Amino acid sequence: MSKDNTKYNTNTPFSKTPGSTNPKAIKSFKSRQQKKVDIEELFTKIRTKDRTALSQGITLIESSQPLHQEKAQQLIERCLPFSNNSIRIGITGVPGVGKSTFIEALGNILISHQKKVAVLAVDPSSSISGGSILGDKTRMETLVASPDAFIRPSPSGNSLGGVAQKTRESIILCEAAGFDTVIIETVGVGQSETAVHSMVDFFLLLKLAGAGDELQGIKRGIIEMADSIVINKADGDNKKRAREAKNQFKKALHLYPISHNGWLPQVLTCSALTNEGITDILELISSYIKITKTNGSFENKRIEQNKYWLLQTIEEQLKSSFFNHPGIKEILPKKIDALKRHEISPFAAAKALLTLHKNNTEKA
Amino acid sequence: MSKDNTKYNTNTPFSKTPGSTNPKAIKSFKSRQQKKVDIEELFTKIRTKDRTALSQGITLIESSQPLHQEKAQQLIERCLPFSNNSIRIGITGVPGVGKSTFIEALGNILISHQKKVAVLAVDPSSSISGGSILGDKTRMETLVASPDAFIRPSPSGNSLGGVAQKTRESIILCEAAGFDTVIIETVGVGQSETAVHSMVDFFLLLKLAGAGDELQGIKRGIIEMADSIVINKADGDNKKRAREAKNQFKKALHLYPISHNGWLPQVLTCSALTNEGITDILELISSYIKITKTNGSFENKRIEQNKYWLLQTIEEQLKSSFFNHPGIKEILPKKIDALKRHEISPFAAAKALLTLHKNNTEKA
Repeated sequence: MSKDNTKYNTNTPFSKTPGSTNPKAIKSFKSRQQKKVDIEELFTKIRTKDRTALSQGITLIESSQPLHQEKAQQLIERCLPFSNNSIRIGITGVPGVGKSTFIEALGNILISHQKKVAVLAVDPSSSISGGSILGDKTRMETLVASPDAFIRPSPSGNSLGGVAQKTRESIILCEAAGFDTVIIETVGVGQSETAVHSMVDFFLLLKLAGAGDELQGIKRGIIEMADSIVINKADGDNKKRAREAKNQFKKALHLYPISHNGWLPQVLTCSALTNEGITDILELISSYIKITKTNGSFENKRIEQNKYWLLQTIEEQLKSSFFNHPGIKEILPKKIDALKRHEISPFAAAKALLTLHKNNTEKA
Repeated sequence: MSKDNTKYNTNTPFSKTPGSTNPKAIKSFKSRQQKKVDIEELFTKIRTKDRTALSQGITLIESSQPLHQEKAQQLIERCLPFSNNSIRIGITGVPGVGKSTFIEALGNILISHQKKVAVLAVDPSSSISGGSILGDKTRMETLVASPDAFIRPSPSGNSLGGVAQKTRESIILCEAAGFDTVIIETVGVGQSETAVHSMVDFFLLLKLAGAGDELQGIKRGIIEMADSIVINKADGDNKKRAREAKNQFKKALHLYPISHNGWLPQVLTCSALTNEGITDILELISSYIKITKTNGSFENKRIEQNKYWLLQTIEEQLKSSFFNHPGIKEILPKKIDALKRHEISPFAAAKALLTLHKNNTEKA
């Protein structure tokens, strides 16, 4: 499986984004690109809600070329004063739970309420599977066609940290472009829920009614993160099971300590297919926003999230520069072998590696 | 509150260890110390199960003096081939749950089965509160008096990482001294359960029967770590409530996915006061050890734990050298202020700090 999948190759800034770029725009961007990306021009267009410009801006963010990254940072700094003004909603759920249909239903109702909806994704597996959850153009058909929606597949990348950072930065551009609702979808691979949870205001876990033991096999820590659990596909014969699942989740949520923002996570059922229950979910989100904005925890959470991303980025960068150092790459496996044979203590091994790295860095 | 509490000052290698040092030994160690710590002599004595030598060795580990640290590393490397041969049991529970009485009951039965029992602790709060959970000499009276037991309070220190590392290293010395059962106690401050969980074979959560809703308010993630939950003080009028609590925990545990080692966590009740149920707990631990040794997960877990400590030590060291750098200490709060005012993105702030650190390190 090649990392250079042509669909969303980070090395070219011209990934095919369903419904948000067109060949003409790509050509025009390409030719401009060959000269020079005019950040000021791109910024002005983004501010006029130009979806093509927004798409180009995100493509810059996703590029791994140093020049693009520099430009992307300029663009982000330019957009920053006009960001921070949307409601950010995270949605997670396993494949098959109906995330796309749910987001489409939610998005369409939001748009009917004069909202502008951006949908981004964090899916660290998309670079491996060669396609993203949002890559399938047949999904979210009506939302894709709406002028008030912007849909962007997950950036590709080798590390969750990288993928998440790109999405986190893209939020800033979407907000500057006037999208007042940003939905971040994740399929929940690895720690991606934690990453999405730390960039949204409201985190929603989508579930299906199952075989009666709904909590069995649920991912560790995920329930604690949810501001709401929504049981989807509560239609037809499923309705009764969905109600039972709802009660079981309600009971389980009761076992967790109340969040410090005073919010008690709610369990709802819905059918994204028939739209039943979707308005209730929007009302729930509205009431959450209202409560947390009133008691100050909304703004506090955003500040804490920003601090988290600051520290997280530093830690990841420190680790990556350490573990990608050629000397460390050579010696680390040998130390691990020695550990397995109980010939060295983990602390002595760590010390040896840290000394090696220090000497190498100072020499360089 | 001074960090230099006289009781367990890491700066002096002569902390008062209940029941394991005596004034003569301290004096003799002091005078030797003034000349030179003979690691070979200390090692030989430790191997002959000399508890005073063991105590002196751990004191070296706990010392923050560079010379002592160097000596400690020599001693650890010397002991390493004779370590890794005990059963390591972690015990956590909130204050008041009866940890000391429980450990005394467990320890006494183990000793009656010809085991040699070392009790260590990880309590990052002890340096703040000025005393450790094990610092109170009146606790574990019979165990303290037994020649087959060794009891050591928590090392003091400013960071959990530091405290935990010292305890982790002390295990090696205890094992080399012939202690075939090492109990690690923690009061569960901050992330200390995670630290203890990652250094033991079997992790036991001690609980009390409460007001009927046993799971309410339980610390996040703690249930997932437990190989067994034991409800203590199941005596007298408490028996019925303890049984009810047992059933509730059993139900809750059923909600979690089965551990990859095939072990289904068990819930037991006991009375450390009357010894009722303590033998059942030992049998449970034995059967756990038997199962995991047979399916290989016992040794695998230890290897994974060693890798964890290796990587953890490196990460902590990288972070601490970054965040303790004078330049970073000066600029970080300013960047966080800018974050709060939404003037800078967390990623741009991280980049600025990383660049500053890089330039400073290369200059140095």
